[in-house]
Amino acid sequence: MYRTKPVGTDIEAKLRKAFTVGLVLTAETEPHLNGALRQTLNHPGSLVRARLVHQMARAYGLAETRAENLAIAVEFFHTASLLFDDLPCMDDALERRGEPCVHRNYGEAAAMLAALALVNRAYALLWRGLAELPANRQALAGTYVEKCLGVNGILNGQSEDLHFADLPANRRSPQRIAAGKTVSLIRLSLVLPALIGGANPGDVCLLERLASFWGLSYQILDDLKDVFQNPDQTGKTSSRDSSLNRPNMALAIGANQSLQRAERMMGLGDRVLVRLMARLPAVNFLHELGGRFRTEFAIMKETPLSPA
Amino acid sequence: MYRTKPVGTDIEAKLRKAFTVGLVLTAETEPHLNGALRQTLNHPGSLVRARLVHQMARAYGLAETRAENLAIAVEFFHTASLLFDDLPCMDDALERRGEPCVHRNYGEAAAMLAALALVNRAYALLWRGLAELPANRQALAGTYVEKCLGVNGILNGQSEDLHFADLPANRRSPQRIAAGKTVSLIRLSLVLPALIGGANPGDVCLLERLASFWGLSYQILDDLKDVFQNPDQTGKTSSRDSSLNRPNMALAIGANQSLQRAERMMGLGDRVLVRLMARLPAVNFLHELGGRFRTEFAIMKETPLSPA
Repeated sequence: MYRTKPVGTDIEAKLRKAFTVGLVLTAETEPHLNGALRQTLNHPGSLVRARLVHQMARAYGLAETRAENLAIAVEFFHTASLLFDDLPCMDDALERRGEPCVHRNYGEAAAMLAALALVNRAYALLWRGLAELPANRQALAGTYVEKCLGVNGILNGQSEDLHFADLPANRRSPQRIAAGKTVSLIRLSLVLPALIGGANPGDVCLLERLASFWGLSYQILDDLKDVFQNPDQTGKTSSRDSSLNRPNMALAIGANQSLQRAERMMGLGDRVLVRLMARLPAVNFLHELGGRFRTEFAIMKETPLSPA
Repeated sequence: MYRTKPVGTDIEAKLRKAFTVGLVLTAETEPHLNGALRQTLNHPGSLVRARLVHQMARAYGLAETRAENLAIAVEFFHTASLLFDDLPCMDDALERRGEPCVHRNYGEAAAMLAALALVNRAYALLWRGLAELPANRQALAGTYVEKCLGVNGILNGQSEDLHFADLPANRRSPQRIAAGKTVSLIRLSLVLPALIGGANPGDVCLLERLASFWGLSYQILDDLKDVFQNPDQTGKTSSRDSSLNRPNMALAIGANQSLQRAERMMGLGDRVLVRLMARLPAVNFLHELGGRFRTEFAIMKETPLSPA
């Protein structure tokens, strides 16, 4: 019997495999570090960033190996950020991806060293993703990576998230903090492959705007889940934002207004997307991704919202 | 009056400046992260790795800007490793460079995020240090960086150091652990600039051996200081190894045997160095550096050794 295969299944399986074997552990790897990395590599999550990077890279004409290296690199950066976020001095989370957090199983030091191993491996893979490209394109990519991951990108966002209550009033907006904390990696996922593929400045500008709209919507969804869903539904610890005094759109302006704001953001994203697809039809897949995202909001809207 | 200036003073001042301004902090940088980075950048330490990288880079014919970028990159990696090492879940240190540790002034999260900012910046600088080089040389350098900094290099060494007591007996040797924990960054300092400068395999092999002999001697000196010196002399917390059950050569085989072993290592290093200088006279400066190192041992030998 002939079975139709959903588009992207092969790629997804390939990326899942590449993630799982993305770091070589040996009998020489110290047992705590080994365990921390094993647990992390065996729970890849949804790989949404890896798939996004891979598809963007292919849309911009990059070869398969390069696309795969870049995809796993960005996913490793993301995964490392989760290991750090979950630590007691940050979100003090208990669960992640339905398991006790890595630091609870192997200790805080092992969780940190595992995260650093992912970061170093991610840079090695990025490096391969940039191999044999013209020097100016390598330089653009390097600068962009630092912009997203460095002290003025995700690290500052995370720091503002942690010290939200101490920020001056004019900087205490959940949206402003999400722009650093959440948008940075989505921007990297959308823009980096385009830059490497030689995208023109117009495309890059549209992709950056799309990343902002999507990143902010995504953060609102995450905020709603934190308040209204329990760990059985999310696979991670709930109600951290109110108990830790962190920025949360649902807590700041309520569930209904948050959903409205997310819809407005998604609508603005759609307008950007239409312009982008007119310039480069190969990014059509983004429309489908936006649709899946929208389904999540629809489910959230139909669920009676009462704090978990 | 004409004053002679000690060789290298200009370079040292230049590297000190480059270290201090190596990361751009703005009014937007979250105050805890800002403070943690300010304290770190304002206390550069001896910059021994930066000077070593810079001199090696010049000896192998690299341009000044490239040499400086590589020097600060390696020093930033080292500095990040100190911020992580000092955390409560690792060495739980109180002081570093004569100040309360960064995590004691600004919190553990800020210390970690500052360390990650240094790591990301270091990769951005490395990237610049490799710009416009032939693809095969970039690839060699990328692989070497991962070998030293990744899961099978310094991270595994640090993990074995932390979990020393739990290791199987045949892996519980201070020298084996120093090879991962301490030699990795010295190897990176000596070998990376040579690889980038197109050193032949014979040079690389000799440099790797020199890094091993020097790294192991350096660790013995550090172990002796931990046992026999107090914080006034070292600027950092003492007696951590015995209280935390960590590998320490002085505790394992005693002060005299440790000093003898270090002397043997330095002697083996000298023999490698003679061969290296015969091949490339421009690395003569290493002889001077070895001499300074030897002076430290001589002082240690003349000091009556009784635990601090």
